[in-house]
Amino acid sequence: MMNFSYALDELIGLLVPKKVIGHTTFPISHIESLAKTKQGGISFLGNPKYKKDVAISQASVILLPLWLDLTPKENQCFLLFDNPSLALGKLCRDIEEKYYHHPDVGTHPKAAVDATVSIGQNVSIGPNVVVEANATISDNVVIMAGCYIGRGVNIGSDSVLHPSVKVMDFCEIGSRVTLFSGTVIGSDGFGYETVDGIHKKVPQIGNVIIGDDVDIGANTTIDRARFNHTKIGKGTKIDNLVQIGHNVIIGNGCLIAAQTGIAGSTTIGNHVVIGGQVGIAGHLNIPDGVMIAGKSSVANYKPKMGKILRGNPTMPIHDANLFYVLRSRIPDLFDRVLKLEESLRKLLPK
Amino acid sequence: MMNFSYALDELIGLLVPKKVIGHTTFPISHIESLAKTKQGGISFLGNPKYKKDVAISQASVILLPLWLDLTPKENQCFLLFDNPSLALGKLCRDIEEKYYHHPDVGTHPKAAVDATVSIGQNVSIGPNVVVEANATISDNVVIMAGCYIGRGVNIGSDSVLHPSVKVMDFCEIGSRVTLFSGTVIGSDGFGYETVDGIHKKVPQIGNVIIGDDVDIGANTTIDRARFNHTKIGKGTKIDNLVQIGHNVIIGNGCLIAAQTGIAGSTTIGNHVVIGGQVGIAGHLNIPDGVMIAGKSSVANYKPKMGKILRGNPTMPIHDANLFYVLRSRIPDLFDRVLKLEESLRKLLPK
Amino acid sequence: MMNFSYALDELIGLLVPKKVIGHTTFPISHIESLAKTKQGGISFLGNPKYKKDVAISQASVILLPLWLDLTPKENQCFLLFDNPSLALGKLCRDIEEKYYHHPDVGTHPKAAVDATVSIGQNVSIGPNVVVEANATISDNVVIMAGCYIGRGVNIGSDSVLHPSVKVMDFCEIGSRVTLFSGTVIGSDGFGYETVDGIHKKVPQIGNVIIGDDVDIGANTTIDRARFNHTKIGKGTKIDNLVQIGHNVIIGNGCLIAAQTGIAGSTTIGNHVVIGGQVGIAGHLNIPDGVMIAGKSSVANYKPKMGKILRGNPTMPIHDANLFYVLRSRIPDLFDRVLKLEESLRKLLPK
Repeated sequence: MMNFSYALDELIGLLVPKKVIGHTTFPISHIESLAKTKQGGISFLGNPKYKKDVAISQASVILLPLWLDLTPKENQCFLLFDNPSLALGKLCRDIEEKYYHHPDVGTHPKAAVDATVSIGQNVSIGPNVVVEANATISDNVVIMAGCYIGRGVNIGSDSVLHPSVKVMDFCEIGSRVTLFSGTVIGSDGFGYETVDGIHKKVPQIGNVIIGDDVDIGANTTIDRARFNHTKIGKGTKIDNLVQIGHNVIIGNGCLIAAQTGIAGSTTIGNHVVIGGQVGIAGHLNIPDGVMIAGKSSVANYKPKMGKILRGNPTMPIHDANLFYVLRSRIPDLFDRVLKLEESLRKLLPK
Repeated sequence: MMNFSYALDELIGLLVPKKVIGHTTFPISHIESLAKTKQGGISFLGNPKYKKDVAISQASVILLPLWLDLTPKENQCFLLFDNPSLALGKLCRDIEEKYYHHPDVGTHPKAAVDATVSIGQNVSIGPNVVVEANATISDNVVIMAGCYIGRGVNIGSDSVLHPSVKVMDFCEIGSRVTLFSGTVIGSDGFGYETVDGIHKKVPQIGNVIIGDDVDIGANTTIDRARFNHTKIGKGTKIDNLVQIGHNVIIGNGCLIAAQTGIAGSTTIGNHVVIGGQVGIAGHLNIPDGVMIAGKSSVANYKPKMGKILRGNPTMPIHDANLFYVLRSRIPDLFDRVLKLEESLRKLLPK
Repeated sequence: MMNFSYALDELIGLLVPKKVIGHTTFPISHIESLAKTKQGGISFLGNPKYKKDVAISQASVILLPLWLDLTPKENQCFLLFDNPSLALGKLCRDIEEKYYHHPDVGTHPKAAVDATVSIGQNVSIGPNVVVEANATISDNVVIMAGCYIGRGVNIGSDSVLHPSVKVMDFCEIGSRVTLFSGTVIGSDGFGYETVDGIHKKVPQIGNVIIGDDVDIGANTTIDRARFNHTKIGKGTKIDNLVQIGHNVIIGNGCLIAAQTGIAGSTTIGNHVVIGGQVGIAGHLNIPDGVMIAGKSSVANYKPKMGKILRGNPTMPIHDANLFYVLRSRIPDLFDRVLKLEESLRKLLPK
């Protein structure tokens, strides 16, 4: 782990608390939950249910809400805020900027960049990166070690590609996009015509277009379109090991958790939230604002299903939850029906 | 996206329509669905249900079936075929050949190829490729940037390895095979003997053998056998993020969709079709021609289950579909049984 | 496949059988199951149910249990042991050591290792490896082609990183750890605060700590913690394409099969066994020794559920198995209830 160190004064200057109670002489060098923090550490009360952990915490600095009326121990300091979580976020962002890797601007001598590539200002291209002909790399882009950028690819400004990202020919990446390690953008769609038992490849000559402010997790795969485009809308965040099929269109501001798969030609609206390991069949239309519980499979979608879905295949969430409760009472139901049959047999004339 | 351009005459020469109606002066530079195509675009009627979109389409050229009796708008041309989809496929293949990347023949100076490697005619080895001792690379093979080819690996003619594919020691790849980016062929099988709570690795000294005409999607993983072979049969097509365990044997002409996993030592017959996110347990035997619906889990297989399976765990498809319909009526069934019990209580002597 | 060859004398010297019956002049050059082995091959009886295959096997050498009283064919030799599987394991380990790749010690000229990196004795760093500032690589570590080792990363002695593994900034890898190809350690956790529909990234400044003797499969992803640590305990073995979310804590000696996903902040005890394609929700606490069947989803855990779980969502294994049996009888249950209603209607006064 990286080593950081903040004196109390520095912290107060950075976070600007509403109120300071107590004092500590320890410089702050780790962040932990209240119960686990040690001397020289900082913690915070993010959720009132952990309130009693404040008294036992050995943290030298604790970020607390203004409403809390507690007294620090010796050599311990409480910093009070409207929202301690936001204050912690500010500290984390400061640590990230100071201590995490800012790759050097310039093209590493071990990179292989075609002479026809257009490179903006302040761009960093790491070792073993390959950039093919006619690609465009905009200002402030960071391309880390071992990435592959295909022919005619366009990467918007301020985007960051972690090590070993592959962006295949003619794909378009927006601005402020982050692609995590091992992600593949623009692999061929899985399309075959079967003639006499032989699967003949349908050419996949479209591309992938990724909007601004999109994040895509590690080892995720997004297939190029058959023709035209597979699209990921502005501000959508996709987790690790997700599969997006060819010609899928995803709207703006969606959240898609790890290991989910979306089959070809499905359209997802704006602000859709999809849990982990969800499967969505092809050629569906999921409207704006739908939420899908983790591990669900969506075989179709009709408006009467409502906006929150769960199950395999999905049901309205209320129906799914009810089914999961009743499921464990089904053996009992079989017994009850058997008893009814026996009772009735006795009542009936022989 | 790549830029292409076809004059009407060129298109007619390439596609050889049965009939030409109308004319357009626009060169053709994009392909889209009927409703979305703009001036200068080409579209096609693949499915009769979109027939009414022909009248509203702004496409400059539309590929139509011979039986359709419609009149083009001004500066619009209809090309008529027995099968417009096949005609579009021909155009896409032409675009792919003309505009997509044909890597240069030869070994890039940034590649590291062992002196003992045998390299055929007309081979392309890209930058940062590593080829270890005693590997054999046959004629017309393309190995793109950053691939790793282990010791003694054999790659058949006309195969294409996209960037960052890893083929580990002693694996064998057939002819006309495509391996998409990030795929790992020949990682160790997941085999341990647990002695006193310690998991001791069982050596995995077999290999993977991939038949001719196989495609394997991005970031898919195929484990080497414990001893002998993990095998993928001729003409089988595997999608992205699939996991194939050690000693799995897959037959010819299968289709396996994304994120499916097949556990160790299972045998899959010929022409088996497996949907996305399916899980198949180890040591099973799935016969020829079986179809498994997406998101299913196969815990065992018996002939009486028939050829089409669905569910978690799988049932014959008819049973699964019936269960999914009845599932939402189970709360009602509980109510009905309760009413029966109440009615019966009234009838019974106290 | 690699070529190996063992004369009978060599085999006897290596495996030290309790008893030798018969003799073969064939050198041994392949291992197969009893039914598939050919002349010049070795096989073994691991499971008594295959006993009758011994008589039909063409293997030149067969490893058998001492209690088996059989006579070899001409030019065939039986080697008898307390445990033939362990004897085979010894042979496989010998083949692995002799014929599989031992990369050369030293740093390949095509690697890019920062001047501040500390490198132990007997370390192998392959071509196109990148090691960033202040990393520590301990004795006997092997880092194969194309790996990326971030700033301040620590890799313990005798660990092996297969091609194209990425270990991001400040992560810590124990001793005798194996990371298979394409694995990503320390990608950012999937954490966002949504304000007015905009998903703002929560900085992920923690790291990943991997204990000694851990194996991690191909293309698996393990996210760094928000702050503090994501942890994998000593001796835990993780398969391919697994996703481990940020701040997950996994105990010692666990087994986690392929394509499983564990969401953020969940704690897994020691010696937990998790099947393939399992999903575990975030913020759960799974105690020591729990076993979870493949394809299950764990939405919560309570002690009364017991130690063996199955289902989606999970139930105690006995309940799950009962439910799966009754599931196919539910259509019949609907019929029985309908009949009861009809019978009762006849009994009731009109």
